[in-house]
Amino acid sequence: MTADAGGKSSPICIVGGTGALGFGLALRLGRAGIPIIIGSRDEDRAHEAAHRATEAVPTGSYTGHQNAEAVTEAEIVILSVPFRSQSETLTNLKNALKADQLLVDATVPLAAAVSGKATRTLGVWQGSAAQQAQEMAPDGVRVVSAFHTVSAALLSDLDHKLDEDVLICGDRLEDKAKVADLVNAIEGLRPVDCGPLEMARIVEPLTALIISINVRNKVRAGIKITGL
Amino acid sequence: MTADAGGKSSPICIVGGTGALGFGLALRLGRAGIPIIIGSRDEDRAHEAAHRATEAVPTGSYTGHQNAEAVTEAEIVILSVPFRSQSETLTNLKNALKADQLLVDATVPLAAAVSGKATRTLGVWQGSAAQQAQEMAPDGVRVVSAFHTVSAALLSDLDHKLDEDVLICGDRLEDKAKVADLVNAIEGLRPVDCGPLEMARIVEPLTALIISINVRNKVRAGIKITGL
Repeated sequence: MTADAGGKSSPICIVGGTGALGFGLALRLGRAGIPIIIGSRDEDRAHEAAHRATEAVPTGSYTGHQNAEAVTEAEIVILSVPFRSQSETLTNLKNALKADQLLVDATVPLAAAVSGKATRTLGVWQGSAAQQAQEMAPDGVRVVSAFHTVSAALLSDLDHKLDEDVLICGDRLEDKAKVADLVNAIEGLRPVDCGPLEMARIVEPLTALIISINVRNKVRAGIKITGL
Repeated sequence: MTADAGGKSSPICIVGGTGALGFGLALRLGRAGIPIIIGSRDEDRAHEAAHRATEAVPTGSYTGHQNAEAVTEAEIVILSVPFRSQSETLTNLKNALKADQLLVDATVPLAAAVSGKATRTLGVWQGSAAQQAQEMAPDGVRVVSAFHTVSAALLSDLDHKLDEDVLICGDRLEDKAKVADLVNAIEGLRPVDCGPLEMARIVEPLTALIISINVRNKVRAGIKITGL
């Protein structure tokens, strides 16, 4: 969360903000006073999601736009799309994203993307979806990986008291600190610096592990690092 | 932990019990009243470790043997060796392990095995070290994967109050229940069923992630699943 001289927060854009995780983040961040721009491939769906978010969080500031327009106003862009659409989405944003923007990738290469199981992952040539995002993003756009282990359903259930960690991977401390500020804006979430972006190879599959634990225990699990 | 009619626990064998993780498990399980057979390639080192363990846990029952002899008396064998030695150790145990024994694999394919970083892992042909163990173990020996995210140093520090989870992967519920009993015998550890053995592909690299977190935060991190 970034604040200008007047203490007003800069807007955050959530590409894929109509999806379950993106929408849950929109609700929680909006409730924290951060203006949210919801991006979608479809402008009508973006508007509809902004409307729904405003109903859920009347104090929030929500607008909806097509992805390419949505990203232009935000210093931080959260990319929260299914792995199936990640590459296409980034191609479509090639001329919209600008140098010095921070792209927070929450993509998980679940095998479900190719009609496999959600408890299995695909091998991504670059090592992880986040590294694919870094390769595809325009020059000067830095990618940080985060938000893979937080349940979309629990984020959207605003009565639920969160109490878990968000694992953050990225190559620059300064970028990770900005994402940590975002995480800290959401009550009950704690940011944990997991190291360079390549560690997303280990963090992204945790979504599949959590899905496996959820199925076995009929819960909505998350992760917490002990000893910190 | 298995108990016979008289309530006495059956012994557990720890192959690689002279190493940091194996020795830590020996201390904690021994303190819980489970007789421990420490296995090592070198019989003298096994004896020495059993002696050290007895000094640390005077109420414990510790013996030391060469690996092939050590495994014969135990229903449950914990395999806690560096990845570099896993394959060789299993080859050496081919005629010693017997059908119906449970092999609890704690191996992590850290890149450090080939002088790479401990924050990176190697690709294992079978998908994980645990699956390599299952392929190499004699017929009828079942493999369960566990104990990758618990700090060896914290296990060995008996004054330290543990408070974290042990992630367990295996193909049979009955086998995982036995390992869960073992975990529950150690105060402060909680077993979490993560699904079939193949999920070890996701759990094993968590050691590398934890090492990365440890380096950044100067801690001895562990993992806890929230929502259970």
